[in-house]
Amino acid sequence: MSTATIPATRRVGIVGAGQLARMMHRAAIDLGIEVLVLAEGPGEAAVRGGAAHHVGSPERLDDLLALARACDVVTLDHEGVPSAHLRALEAEGVALRPGSGASLAAQDKLHARRLLGDELGLPVPAFTAVDGPRDVEAFAAVHGWPVVLKARTGGYDGRGVRIVGGPEEAAAVLGGGGSWLAEACVPLDLEVAALVARRPSGEAVAYPVCETVQADGMCRELLVPGALTPELAARATALALRVAEAIDAVGILAVELFVSRGELLVNELALRPHNSGHWTIEGAVTSQFENHLRAVLDLPLGDPGALAPAVAMVNVVGPPGGGDPAERLPAALAVRGAHVHLYGKPARPGRKLGHVTALGVTAAAALATAREAAGELMAA
Amino acid sequence: MSTATIPATRRVGIVGAGQLARMMHRAAIDLGIEVLVLAEGPGEAAVRGGAAHHVGSPERLDDLLALARACDVVTLDHEGVPSAHLRALEAEGVALRPGSGASLAAQDKLHARRLLGDELGLPVPAFTAVDGPRDVEAFAAVHGWPVVLKARTGGYDGRGVRIVGGPEEAAAVLGGGGSWLAEACVPLDLEVAALVARRPSGEAVAYPVCETVQADGMCRELLVPGALTPELAARATALALRVAEAIDAVGILAVELFVSRGELLVNELALRPHNSGHWTIEGAVTSQFENHLRAVLDLPLGDPGALAPAVAMVNVVGPPGGGDPAERLPAALAVRGAHVHLYGKPARPGRKLGHVTALGVTAAAALATAREAAGELMAA
Repeated sequence: MSTATIPATRRVGIVGAGQLARMMHRAAIDLGIEVLVLAEGPGEAAVRGGAAHHVGSPERLDDLLALARACDVVTLDHEGVPSAHLRALEAEGVALRPGSGASLAAQDKLHARRLLGDELGLPVPAFTAVDGPRDVEAFAAVHGWPVVLKARTGGYDGRGVRIVGGPEEAAAVLGGGGSWLAEACVPLDLEVAALVARRPSGEAVAYPVCETVQADGMCRELLVPGALTPELAARATALALRVAEAIDAVGILAVELFVSRGELLVNELALRPHNSGHWTIEGAVTSQFENHLRAVLDLPLGDPGALAPAVAMVNVVGPPGGGDPAERLPAALAVRGAHVHLYGKPARPGRKLGHVTALGVTAAAALATAREAAGELMAA
Repeated sequence: MSTATIPATRRVGIVGAGQLARMMHRAAIDLGIEVLVLAEGPGEAAVRGGAAHHVGSPERLDDLLALARACDVVTLDHEGVPSAHLRALEAEGVALRPGSGASLAAQDKLHARRLLGDELGLPVPAFTAVDGPRDVEAFAAVHGWPVVLKARTGGYDGRGVRIVGGPEEAAAVLGGGGSWLAEACVPLDLEVAALVARRPSGEAVAYPVCETVQADGMCRELLVPGALTPELAARATALALRVAEAIDAVGILAVELFVSRGELLVNELALRPHNSGHWTIEGAVTSQFENHLRAVLDLPLGDPGALAPAVAMVNVVGPPGGGDPAERLPAALAVRGAHVHLYGKPARPGRKLGHVTALGVTAAAALATAREAAGELMAA
């Protein structure tokens, strides 16, 4: 054994230990890369999946620094790290990827709207900053009711988004406190997402644009390719690549877009692996999780191309009446061609607990397979 | 959180913590299954990949029992568990999968030859039990020199296999001690492997037969489909399914075969995920690692079909002059379409440290991609 050498390890620190960190850990195993996650406790999804962890809070700078000191680079699996802490990490010389400036575009929706719409001139829904009910009324006077109120920070999966039909409803939402912006409620043809991976050097690759089907603000189903024209898909890809460069994104950037009256409008950004990219684990040559790791470590990016004419993904959420999808795994595995993912999370109604992906010759075939297996998991 | 319930976990105990256990752990993450490996220490490949572990030895029954008590079922990632211990586990009521009887066909080469050749009437090379040099000479008088001497137990990756050209060489090998059998040295057209997965209920699925290219007794490259006729491939598949049923295999059974003068001869069996199935991680709908877990947990088996017209796999071994492939990861990741796997093991010349898989429209294209990336990793 005397000729053995210690492996050249690369260690990626991940702030957060949910299913995104869990799936990053899975991708790290392939490449011989180690991850270290900052977890609230040992019961979180990534830790249950075997990721090494420090216990700590993303809101405590000391915890973030302790994580950073044990790793080569630090990345994020959510938007919940205070922006000041991200800047402090950079001031300490931490290789934070993406950087604090890029992350702000996912953390602060008003900042994102101004950056995308006003500075970059990209198509976004009409919006305005809101200080009180009168701002909403003035906005509605131009753009009409209903109006979409969005919390500037902290919203996800439909939380922090309220559609209000008139002044009273608006006043009630704003009266609850917090900082909001108002957006025009645009008619939706469909919703799509464009994912890109980008290295610090600027090298970037783009995944095929997908169509997402939302319910209650949460992504429920996804199709590649979606029901958008190749020309719109190409424009969405070009737009995502432009945003990535403009904000100096590193890692995965997910751009969620509306297609409204045949035109693209940027909805939101995420600077991390994203639900709209889970299909890439089996459906693309290189998964979003592997490409996120490659990107934050400044390694060459992998081929984002799809492996089948159609790919479908269906989220598995806790059934309304209770019950744990993990208990119904046998029935789901009996669905031929379904790729079942369970996150090891305690079941709760409405909570994302897993997803199912299926490849197919047609979108209908892929979707039928994924729906069948997800339906088995979510059966009462 | 009061409505949350604990996930329905299934825990698979794995005796051994090498790369096979590491890749089983990776597959377990997808399904929300937990593994617990019996490891010699925390530096082993599966533990470095995040698998929960007990420290212990496969040669100590107490360690095996402690593992079993913490798991729903117990399986193996190598053949090094004493057969008496496997029987003792079964006597204690442990759900050992595969069972001790089936495992013996992989542990004891003489037992396997008698079972396959004499009892099942399957084609095997001419063989004989060997008690001393005279037995080898008598065998050579019928079958000619050279003769292949194989250790009855403990051999793998070329260890325990010696080709002897005459009586003196044979005597030298036998003089070193151990229990051997003699086999005819058959002319090889090519070597192939047939993998099947089988549940306790008898349900079984068969992977496409692959061609393996060996050097120094170790698998170096693999192609799906290989250069064998569809008719031979179908016979190899039928043979593997028959063996699986005959020995009551549970989990993956790999049957290594010679093609000699156009005819199949069974070489060896492995009752665990096998190097000849690493291509299935990206190349098949369901990987051998996932199907092994499904099988030992008696869950429905997944589709074993290939995802591309051709798949190639090239092993990454420590370069002769030293050097660690992990240090050359960037160059390998620059090869488009190559799926790099590194096992997190300390580098040593000749040691299996990883593998590369590539899909292609033709075997030549897939092999070129996999060879290029593996070559980068193994460059001095």
